[in-house]
Amino acid sequence: MSVAVVGSVAFDSITSPSGSVENILGGAATYFSLAASYFTKVRVVAVVGEDFTPAQENVFKKHGIDTRGIERAKGKTFRWGGQYLDNLNEAKTDFTELNVFQSFQPRIPKEYEDTQFLFLANIQPTLQADVRRKLNRVCLTGCDTMNFWIRGAREELLQTLKLVDVLLINDTEAKMLAAESNLPRAAQKVLAMGPQALVIKHGEYGATIFFREGAFGIGHHPFRAPALPIEEVVDPTGAGDSFAGGFMGYIASQGEVSREVLKRALFYGGVMGSFAVERFGTERLESLTREEIDARFQIFRELTHLE
Amino acid sequence: MSVAVVGSVAFDSITSPSGSVENILGGAATYFSLAASYFTKVRVVAVVGEDFTPAQENVFKKHGIDTRGIERAKGKTFRWGGQYLDNLNEAKTDFTELNVFQSFQPRIPKEYEDTQFLFLANIQPTLQADVRRKLNRVCLTGCDTMNFWIRGAREELLQTLKLVDVLLINDTEAKMLAAESNLPRAAQKVLAMGPQALVIKHGEYGATIFFREGAFGIGHHPFRAPALPIEEVVDPTGAGDSFAGGFMGYIASQGEVSREVLKRALFYGGVMGSFAVERFGTERLESLTREEIDARFQIFRELTHLE
Repeated sequence: MSVAVVGSVAFDSITSPSGSVENILGGAATYFSLAASYFTKVRVVAVVGEDFTPAQENVFKKHGIDTRGIERAKGKTFRWGGQYLDNLNEAKTDFTELNVFQSFQPRIPKEYEDTQFLFLANIQPTLQADVRRKLNRVCLTGCDTMNFWIRGAREELLQTLKLVDVLLINDTEAKMLAAESNLPRAAQKVLAMGPQALVIKHGEYGATIFFREGAFGIGHHPFRAPALPIEEVVDPTGAGDSFAGGFMGYIASQGEVSREVLKRALFYGGVMGSFAVERFGTERLESLTREEIDARFQIFRELTHLE
Repeated sequence: MSVAVVGSVAFDSITSPSGSVENILGGAATYFSLAASYFTKVRVVAVVGEDFTPAQENVFKKHGIDTRGIERAKGKTFRWGGQYLDNLNEAKTDFTELNVFQSFQPRIPKEYEDTQFLFLANIQPTLQADVRRKLNRVCLTGCDTMNFWIRGAREELLQTLKLVDVLLINDTEAKMLAAESNLPRAAQKVLAMGPQALVIKHGEYGATIFFREGAFGIGHHPFRAPALPIEEVVDPTGAGDSFAGGFMGYIASQGEVSREVLKRALFYGGVMGSFAVERFGTERLESLTREEIDARFQIFRELTHLE
């Protein structure tokens, strides 16, 4: 099965302890698509400006990603600049130029209408809900959000969460959304808002999936997949979106949601996130092989496997 | 096999979001002993003042812990006061009264001389080394330390690390000791200082053990055990020492160091740490059963187990 994603395509300018890059291809939909493309066919819904080049579109096309949902608008593509200084887990934003993203109204190509697996990357919650409602053959919806919407568009977000099957956020966002500092209890509060399952991403420590009682008919014990930075962390940008791409891409490739599929999906999420951070931007995600991915899956599996 | 521990016995005054307690029994050697006592016989080397009561000694004795190494000195027992406010992972120290601990010179009872498993809790590194040298039948030495010694007694600490088999510290301490922010590379640098193995504790995310090439003849791939706060975190004090108690206690109970024993020991460490934080002070550690411990071991095992 294919997976569709709606989110940003951006040009990023990034400084980290490893160096600096300017105006490189980025954005949540980009990282997600590339990561998911190693598992299944991917469809993108996004908007770019007149400065988006055929060479940049080719980054998607080379991975068999369907770009018919990338709308060309008048103006410039969304730009973001940020720095990772002492703390590689947190970016200091230098600038955000929304440009064509400011008036983004996602348009779904006719060819995407049979989409069954959907990921709503981090955009305004009402737009997320609109996309979900337009695609009425979807059987599993994943969703991301951030502190900006949790604080500033809480009511809209709560409406969106009712349409979502799996929410993927980090520890800080989960605790903020639930107003609760104990992780398992925060998870239960978020699950009561709508999702069947909640994936909480712990950065270099991996991720935990919590289930609602009876979710997917598979019981409610949580499951955790580890992660480990294998190489140097060069650029953390896009780690979460790459995680989501591995997670959703693997589920879509299996075409069914069982406990074992979700467990393996969580491992693949950690694997894709760990690759993404090894180079600036999408460089590492562009050059992977499925063999490298499965080799790292085995490393992460053995990392916690008791006889 | 029994395990001996040298470290502090203290009276703690603690404030957390769950409430406040004053002058309750604490200290690294106390938490370690109680946690380890569920796995094997424990011997304590520590110093207390004239204010240490038979009722307090009974907390140890009820768990079969050998207290002949607890020296009574003139003066008051070590006292510590601290608060956990927004961040349950970090205590703000209100006061530290070293009292009899200031001139602590560990004395090893004759009956402890055949000790084969030893844990050097967080005390001045030269004292740690002295204890290790006095016990010449030890086959496995575990060791803890903290930022205070890493910064303030680095040379002494480096001498001690040459005598240590397994160092147990947290992420921040490992990165500080190695002057390296990437966790696996920090681990390799610390292992080059002497220990065969390094356990890095990640708080609520569990712990990872890294091995030197050829350590214990069991290969060098790292292993991670997860953790998860099951109940409310009431008081994080002693979590790391309880982790060490479960880890060392389990190893001593097996009497041998294999890869599988170390993996299980890491899980038991996480289990004992997760119990310790559920009540103030040692309350939860005093009232456990081995059945409760093994039930939580299974929960943590299933938390990451892929078919």
